[in-house]
Amino acid sequence: MEIKVLKDILGANEQIAERNRQLLDTNGVFAVNVMSSPGAGKTSLIMETIKRLKGEIKIGVIEGDVSSSIDAEIIGKEGVPVLQINTGGECHLEANMIYRALSNLPLQDIELLFIENVGNLICTAEFALGAHRKVLVSSTPEGDDKPFKYPLMFHKVDVVLINKIDLLPHLKFDIQAYSQAIKGINEKAEIFQISCTTGQGIDQWLSWLQNQMRFFKNLQKR
Amino acid sequence: MEIKVLKDILGANEQIAERNRQLLDTNGVFAVNVMSSPGAGKTSLIMETIKRLKGEIKIGVIEGDVSSSIDAEIIGKEGVPVLQINTGGECHLEANMIYRALSNLPLQDIELLFIENVGNLICTAEFALGAHRKVLVSSTPEGDDKPFKYPLMFHKVDVVLINKIDLLPHLKFDIQAYSQAIKGINEKAEIFQISCTTGQGIDQWLSWLQNQMRFFKNLQKR
Repeated sequence: MEIKVLKDILGANEQIAERNRQLLDTNGVFAVNVMSSPGAGKTSLIMETIKRLKGEIKIGVIEGDVSSSIDAEIIGKEGVPVLQINTGGECHLEANMIYRALSNLPLQDIELLFIENVGNLICTAEFALGAHRKVLVSSTPEGDDKPFKYPLMFHKVDVVLINKIDLLPHLKFDIQAYSQAIKGINEKAEIFQISCTTGQGIDQWLSWLQNQMRFFKNLQKR
Repeated sequence: MEIKVLKDILGANEQIAERNRQLLDTNGVFAVNVMSSPGAGKTSLIMETIKRLKGEIKIGVIEGDVSSSIDAEIIGKEGVPVLQINTGGECHLEANMIYRALSNLPLQDIELLFIENVGNLICTAEFALGAHRKVLVSSTPEGDDKPFKYPLMFHKVDVVLINKIDLLPHLKFDIQAYSQAIKGINEKAEIFQISCTTGQGIDQWLSWLQNQMRFFKNLQKR
């Protein structure tokens, strides 16, 4: 019975996610679903990306949190359109929340839309939102066993950003073993080592992101 | 409709949690529900506690993970009874999982039972398991804004262990503001600053834990 209900929810979610994708495509908006544990660095990554790209690319942000609008306020200071979703108790964003958010954003003024999901490594991976790419921000202090414990997340994403590598000298974290574990679950995943504090690796992330956007725009022209 | 289903699940869960509590009480087992984000240090805390107390207190552990038995294997090496629950996709433990686990543990040989919940700051707080105390392990690299973003968790726990304080010199983390934010949500919460790496603060945690157990034993005698 419970499982049946969940299946219905997931089925409906997929349909709305597809509608979101069509809406994004029609408006030429490239959307990225950013996921992670609490405090792994999603907002810092988005902030760093906005700071470096806002001269070239029109960026918008949807912020997902159980409660509070802390992140939306931080990002709003950068002068980009931002919308906060408070899920109440839900531990993940769902496609219908994004559908409502999209109708409240100036899509014609956005080329790149970040959707910052709720801090959670489990359920966020299960719910499609309609975004074009999925990004996992993984934080080194969390330890190198996470791919084994949260395999669905690592399986579903297009890129893993190993964040807070500036802390590596103070941690027991085998980055080679960690990268191999990710590849074992998801051969196609891109992996970048970054630090939003020192700026290390951010160029590679931006270069990957801009390539994906070029690919998206070329598809649109056809 | 969805909400109704959730209410039914939660209602049934509460009942089973109470049954768990009775079973624990009858057997004189003091149970602690340990919660945190992924990789905040639940297993390290339990390991450290076992190492220091296993000569005095008979300890058992229930390990909750979406998948893998990594933590159960680590803890099993300490020679204490340990049982792994794999939730499949569920992002939290529920009382019925604990009920089944309890019937597979030698309760007469356990005085202190750790229940390590799934790494998640949201749903784990919603589901009672029947434990006597709830502990949150909070990791400094996650940032000092967590009480505002995950208020239910901070509201529900008896003690917050601020872990990885050895990393503070490398982080932007205002520990005074953080502690005040916790007290604002949960005035009664005990707060200890610890490091499972350096051992700092572990004595205070153990002293609190042993006090709680003494209190429990005195209640039992009546």
